[in-house]
Amino acid sequence: MNDNQVKEITNRDVDFAKWYTDVVKKADLIDYSSVKGSMIIRPYGYAIWENMQSILDKKFKSTNHENVQMPMFIPESLLNVEKEHVLGFAPEVAWVTYGGNNKLEERMCVRPTSETLFCEHFKKIIKSYRDLPVLYNQWCTIVRWEKTTRPFLRSREILWQEGHTMHATEKEAKEETLRMLKIYEDFQKNILAIPVFTGKKTDKEKFAGAEETYAIEAMMYDGIALQNATSHYFGQGFAKAFDIKFLDKDNKLKYPYQTSWGCTTRMIGALVMVHGDNRGLVLPPRIAPYKVIIIPISDDEEINKTVDSIKEDLSDSLITYKIDNSNKTPGFKFAEAEVKGYPIRIEVGKRDLKEGIVTIVRRDTLEKIKVPADEAVMKVNELLINIQNDMYERALKRRNSMIYEASNYEEMTKIAKEKQGFIFTNWCGDEACENKIKDDLGLKSRCIPFEGKEPTGDKTCVCCGKKATTKIYWAKQY
Amino acid sequence: MNDNQVKEITNRDVDFAKWYTDVVKKADLIDYSSVKGSMIIRPYGYAIWENMQSILDKKFKSTNHENVQMPMFIPESLLNVEKEHVLGFAPEVAWVTYGGNNKLEERMCVRPTSETLFCEHFKKIIKSYRDLPVLYNQWCTIVRWEKTTRPFLRSREILWQEGHTMHATEKEAKEETLRMLKIYEDFQKNILAIPVFTGKKTDKEKFAGAEETYAIEAMMYDGIALQNATSHYFGQGFAKAFDIKFLDKDNKLKYPYQTSWGCTTRMIGALVMVHGDNRGLVLPPRIAPYKVIIIPISDDEEINKTVDSIKEDLSDSLITYKIDNSNKTPGFKFAEAEVKGYPIRIEVGKRDLKEGIVTIVRRDTLEKIKVPADEAVMKVNELLINIQNDMYERALKRRNSMIYEASNYEEMTKIAKEKQGFIFTNWCGDEACENKIKDDLGLKSRCIPFEGKEPTGDKTCVCCGKKATTKIYWAKQY
Repeated sequence: MNDNQVKEITNRDVDFAKWYTDVVKKADLIDYSSVKGSMIIRPYGYAIWENMQSILDKKFKSTNHENVQMPMFIPESLLNVEKEHVLGFAPEVAWVTYGGNNKLEERMCVRPTSETLFCEHFKKIIKSYRDLPVLYNQWCTIVRWEKTTRPFLRSREILWQEGHTMHATEKEAKEETLRMLKIYEDFQKNILAIPVFTGKKTDKEKFAGAEETYAIEAMMYDGIALQNATSHYFGQGFAKAFDIKFLDKDNKLKYPYQTSWGCTTRMIGALVMVHGDNRGLVLPPRIAPYKVIIIPISDDEEINKTVDSIKEDLSDSLITYKIDNSNKTPGFKFAEAEVKGYPIRIEVGKRDLKEGIVTIVRRDTLEKIKVPADEAVMKVNELLINIQNDMYERALKRRNSMIYEASNYEEMTKIAKEKQGFIFTNWCGDEACENKIKDDLGLKSRCIPFEGKEPTGDKTCVCCGKKATTKIYWAKQY
Repeated sequence: MNDNQVKEITNRDVDFAKWYTDVVKKADLIDYSSVKGSMIIRPYGYAIWENMQSILDKKFKSTNHENVQMPMFIPESLLNVEKEHVLGFAPEVAWVTYGGNNKLEERMCVRPTSETLFCEHFKKIIKSYRDLPVLYNQWCTIVRWEKTTRPFLRSREILWQEGHTMHATEKEAKEETLRMLKIYEDFQKNILAIPVFTGKKTDKEKFAGAEETYAIEAMMYDGIALQNATSHYFGQGFAKAFDIKFLDKDNKLKYPYQTSWGCTTRMIGALVMVHGDNRGLVLPPRIAPYKVIIIPISDDEEINKTVDSIKEDLSDSLITYKIDNSNKTPGFKFAEAEVKGYPIRIEVGKRDLKEGIVTIVRRDTLEKIKVPADEAVMKVNELLINIQNDMYERALKRRNSMIYEASNYEEMTKIAKEKQGFIFTNWCGDEACENKIKDDLGLKSRCIPFEGKEPTGDKTCVCCGKKATTKIYWAKQY
């Protein structure tokens, strides 16, 4: 970061898209390169991802999943084995055609997802019911050749994890699908402070090759939906396509039942767009790489002594922190701390110290709190919990205020035109209505929630007026 | 693992290559797939890599390095910027030529290493001496289109870390190069229990584009060398090619000095080939995913009670363990535990329990130790330290017994034909001799050691007889 780097950020209510790219760039989360459609994840952005990985990886392991690493390439013939799957992915893969100077006999794509690779392996390692369940996860990079890209949200290269599991029974596989969805939901709620809807995707929106797809749907500040994680139940589709069979307890050969589930660096985009403000990033304490930034107002012996003492207290409390010892002006340092979204800033200045106090500033509310210097870290401990909770509550309140119910197409059209947010309606279940709503209003189905999905009011589809089978959320999407 | 899976392993003194592939496969480290030249790293193999990552990552961070993530693709024009570099790597890269159905305007390779990507980024972020040093690391997968591949040793896809740093002065950059080499050396010695030589590579063997390359050279059981990690000093070569300049304290524009350094999953191959035996893998305790395997000899109440109590003691001591509760025979369980190389096996059987004891078996020596059940974990704690040290000492002794000195070409030829191991000789420094030795004897230069490199004896080159400038190690290599 250079002294002369201006931290001006576009107003988020004037141009949200420009605000977003300003924030991810100025908070040093990413940079661009000559590799179109890809991004560089800079140390501060990558540290957020490492925190996400570390927390989720522990969760996956505590639920008996093991990490593996598959090849990054998929031969074309292997991608082609499951028909729906290849139709969904072939148009957006990167093809490797040459190794050095030699044309490959068979071209290979860089994995867009690894169901085919896992299935080929599962066929070799699954022989008996004793080999089940197989509970695997992989942290890796995938590639999808997107035409329009935006940092974290839609990128040609995506850092993610993909879980792939095989089970002896349909019941176990379905339980696994929902177990992992719940892990994602809890993670987003408790760690990222992001309120989410969970539910089932429509047939039109489900993963290519899946029987059922469940998703985590979050609402960004601008009311647009971001699908943040998915969990798929495959039934025996891939198992049959790959001829994976096991000898069950009853001595019969059977096809196992499969799931996969994943989440990506897209969650970093969600953090920005749910919590950020006109000064930049606002990170929930539980995911922030540094919970506290200490800013000495000047280079002074007493200030340095106080800073050292606070540092020691923070270390004792296992609270991660940064110190801005640069020769920039205090005002510049404050602005920079705000852009980067450290949850708490501690200003240590001479005037305050004359009264034995320091100033603590909450990033989420910008509230200033004066406390005795030797009680600073006790206050920080308390504030970190409050900030985490308040950020969730604030996001939840805002999201709930942007959910609208519509009972007929006229109402739905009016809301879609005048409001930002999600629309909750009755639906007949017919893809024709889904397509019409997309074409007319630019809204896509988000999910059918687990609870409260019974049709209400006149119980007719908001679009065609026929008998509704469910309620469903609609929204514009990233 | 299936009951009927035979764990027979080729004798390592009869066919070492076959022994190696037997062990990596039967210890469940890897599997093959239809992706030629790539491997599947299975949970047990990946857990070893995760341990390596975790330990090294802490080391890198404690020396102020930050993790980042660059794109995985390099446009051809970017790879071409530094001339020596592209000559070294272009013949062995995988080229992506299509995105979906569209031919790319410019083809891109999958990164074989990321100097060019880092340099493009460094040009943007380095403006002033205040921005230096930049100390970055990246954990990722790279691709090199090898013709002949072997699991972990030479693979088309390689999991690795690559550090890339920029410094204001030559001195700092050279210190960094050696600092990281030392971290690798300590890691291999203290964690992997692998004795290594460290030293400088010859000009012929250095990294494409580097001014100096330093390497970690280990000797495998069969006397063949495995280069296990490298650290490069680039001087200002890339900085000039990429036009990276910073304003120094003296207000002059200067080119910064660069390093890069890396190590890979190849280290897993080294673990196998240094420590393994005819029963399979032997893992040093400090890198083993599970330090202990507990084997109940039968399903019995008293046995289960003892197992539970040992489990609890192990957990209290933070010692990772596995329990083999399968319905296989004890003999099969022992063989499997040996193939997988768990450092310690605890057998809990009825006959022993009558006397209140359990049997502990060291994997490295196969020594059986009877201890009171309630002292088992105290003994395990002691043994883990002993095993780690003994394994290093044993490997060191064996390696040292396979180093030969040769003072003339006749001697060198005789040793090369009759012995397995490293040959240490005087050398004139001329590439012609290096080429002749390779062509005649199949030996490549390993490294010029930091200490003891002054020519000895008649001080003439072992090959051409001219004045020697240094001593150097030679060996066959993987």
